[in-house]
Amino acid sequence: MNVKTKKLGNGITNVIINDPKTYNSLSFKTLRDLLNTFTRLDKDDNTRVIILEGSGKGFSAGHNLKEVGGIKNRLNHLKLFNLCSKLMMKIVEGKKPVIAKVHGAAYAAGCQLAASCDLAYSTTNATFATPGVNIGLFCSTPMVAVSRKVTRKIMMKMLLTGDPINAKYAKEIGLINDCFSNKKLNIEVLKIAKKISSKSNLTIKIGKQAFYKQLEMPLGDAYKFTSKMMTVNMASQDAKEGISAFLQKRKPSWKNK
Amino acid sequence: MNVKTKKLGNGITNVIINDPKTYNSLSFKTLRDLLNTFTRLDKDDNTRVIILEGSGKGFSAGHNLKEVGGIKNRLNHLKLFNLCSKLMMKIVEGKKPVIAKVHGAAYAAGCQLAASCDLAYSTTNATFATPGVNIGLFCSTPMVAVSRKVTRKIMMKMLLTGDPINAKYAKEIGLINDCFSNKKLNIEVLKIAKKISSKSNLTIKIGKQAFYKQLEMPLGDAYKFTSKMMTVNMASQDAKEGISAFLQKRKPSWKNK
Amino acid sequence: MNVKTKKLGNGITNVIINDPKTYNSLSFKTLRDLLNTFTRLDKDDNTRVIILEGSGKGFSAGHNLKEVGGIKNRLNHLKLFNLCSKLMMKIVEGKKPVIAKVHGAAYAAGCQLAASCDLAYSTTNATFATPGVNIGLFCSTPMVAVSRKVTRKIMMKMLLTGDPINAKYAKEIGLINDCFSNKKLNIEVLKIAKKISSKSNLTIKIGKQAFYKQLEMPLGDAYKFTSKMMTVNMASQDAKEGISAFLQKRKPSWKNK
Repeated sequence: MNVKTKKLGNGITNVIINDPKTYNSLSFKTLRDLLNTFTRLDKDDNTRVIILEGSGKGFSAGHNLKEVGGIKNRLNHLKLFNLCSKLMMKIVEGKKPVIAKVHGAAYAAGCQLAASCDLAYSTTNATFATPGVNIGLFCSTPMVAVSRKVTRKIMMKMLLTGDPINAKYAKEIGLINDCFSNKKLNIEVLKIAKKISSKSNLTIKIGKQAFYKQLEMPLGDAYKFTSKMMTVNMASQDAKEGISAFLQKRKPSWKNK
Repeated sequence: MNVKTKKLGNGITNVIINDPKTYNSLSFKTLRDLLNTFTRLDKDDNTRVIILEGSGKGFSAGHNLKEVGGIKNRLNHLKLFNLCSKLMMKIVEGKKPVIAKVHGAAYAAGCQLAASCDLAYSTTNATFATPGVNIGLFCSTPMVAVSRKVTRKIMMKMLLTGDPINAKYAKEIGLINDCFSNKKLNIEVLKIAKKISSKSNLTIKIGKQAFYKQLEMPLGDAYKFTSKMMTVNMASQDAKEGISAFLQKRKPSWKNK
Repeated sequence: MNVKTKKLGNGITNVIINDPKTYNSLSFKTLRDLLNTFTRLDKDDNTRVIILEGSGKGFSAGHNLKEVGGIKNRLNHLKLFNLCSKLMMKIVEGKKPVIAKVHGAAYAAGCQLAASCDLAYSTTNATFATPGVNIGLFCSTPMVAVSRKVTRKIMMKMLLTGDPINAKYAKEIGLINDCFSNKKLNIEVLKIAKKISSKSNLTIKIGKQAFYKQLEMPLGDAYKFTSKMMTVNMASQDAKEGISAFLQKRKPSWKNK
């Protein structure tokens, strides 16, 4: 397994890409292991929030270029890119919030992976890039995720030059939520994860899944869809409990149904 | 009536949500009153620009939770969320520019209301939040408006934690245009409103309505549509007068037709 | 010809709008000359990157108002706006990266032109505006390009007031990539252009064309499409060479096929 998982308490599960000798490259094997892990955790009642990070020197360097270069037919290249896309879709369409915790480099498909998470935090010296252009292979799939987070001219600059950006700038442009010193990153990410895990995970499931869907709809359709979702949400025990608790000025006690 | 209107001169109409004892909550009654008010002003020849604000301590706390909690069937919840969505669509699809003038809190559907206006200004100590997750009811309809103004990871942080943001940050992320001291807010909003009301309101009507429509189209369709709209606009007396005035270096005199 | 071209070496071609006595207004003639120039350069093997600028006092003031005011029938107005849109689409859909190099004013359709380029750089005292509202003719086609680069409330402020913004702010909101002193702008733009022209232009062609297409697709379709495009890209000699060079730690030698 190129992926490890660790329970951190409070319903927080840590997913660690564990192939440090290839800078956690997203090889066929690692992609499959990640996809299986996210599929499993999506159904795991003891997982309410997921923190995704890389082991060793950094987050992920992207595809494994030795492997990519060794593949000799189109079909297998397509399989690789489709598998990678499937993993990204799984994170977006899953029920549980996923927080990327980035140190070192998040490059190419590694940058896409961080961009695909619901939230992302990094060390202040982390770097992000879509450098495919430097090896003659444009970051076409990575740009799908990144270009939905940052504005177009900034994205084009990254894609056309391949130049990395630093964490402070990544925050400014909306690619990550915030950056912290190496020492503080873990504490800060855990703080956010704990706060989110203290909410009703039924509510969060409904909300996360509605969020990405409504973004792709025209305004009128988005309102029709989310009005239905809020009605479904209101019928849950947790919304009733939450509103009662609010009116009675006490802490809610979630049943997650 | 939970909504008051006031003529401020220069074609500027002030709409005031007036249910301060519930922090201008968006109850069935207030939503209906707002919808009726915006419908009426859209046809009012003496209204060229609308300034929307809340009375009392702040802008609006969102839905009336006592009312929401008291509703016992799905159909009435759906009616409530649909009515709320209808109001938001009315503001977006209306002919007149609407400026939100926010003090205190703009939370949940209140935040959505400010986000739905064409422009928004606030006091420096105003706060904005989508805190539904704290009461087990995800801000699914509010996020439709807010997520079309701010980038995705910032929005997700607001939705998953429920934490409020301050006015300075709301400006940075594009949720509001600017913020001012309590003393200056009124003067600054009036200045903008007057500037806009000095333009041809026929031109602004064509432009505002084209703006939101073209945003939802692919680039090629957006160009076809707006090229037609500019041609319609060019056929108006005001465009002819405006161009003549420009070439003759004099002030234009609008006929609004 | 109201448009000049100049070879700057390294596959960089300079396109200069050359009608300084009308502030490089986008008249029928200038639009046609630009369209022909971009069409020609798109097929020119010696052009890898295009730098677009205005001659004289500034970039472009937008449509030629004398000409627009003199047109007496709708059909010719529609022809003008359609021709202008065709030019903008040509830049977006073309194979070669286009960098706007802006000094002075980029107003109305001139602002649209800068916004339509893949990258944009300006002098620190350049200004940008969508001021059509001041002459009774809303900037409906310009807003198509600009509103796809900047957030909605900022765009609405520009459209409803017609007020210009300065270069520093244009950078903050994502309308341009960066701004430099008059002295440094040329050097900096050339630096970027040279960096981009040093890449495989086959790779850049595939990437640029995929970029704008995937932006208009739902996430799942965008991944399917770009996975195919990456597979096509991988089958090229340049991707193979680029990956080999990377693994062998040497500089790649592009064949552009």
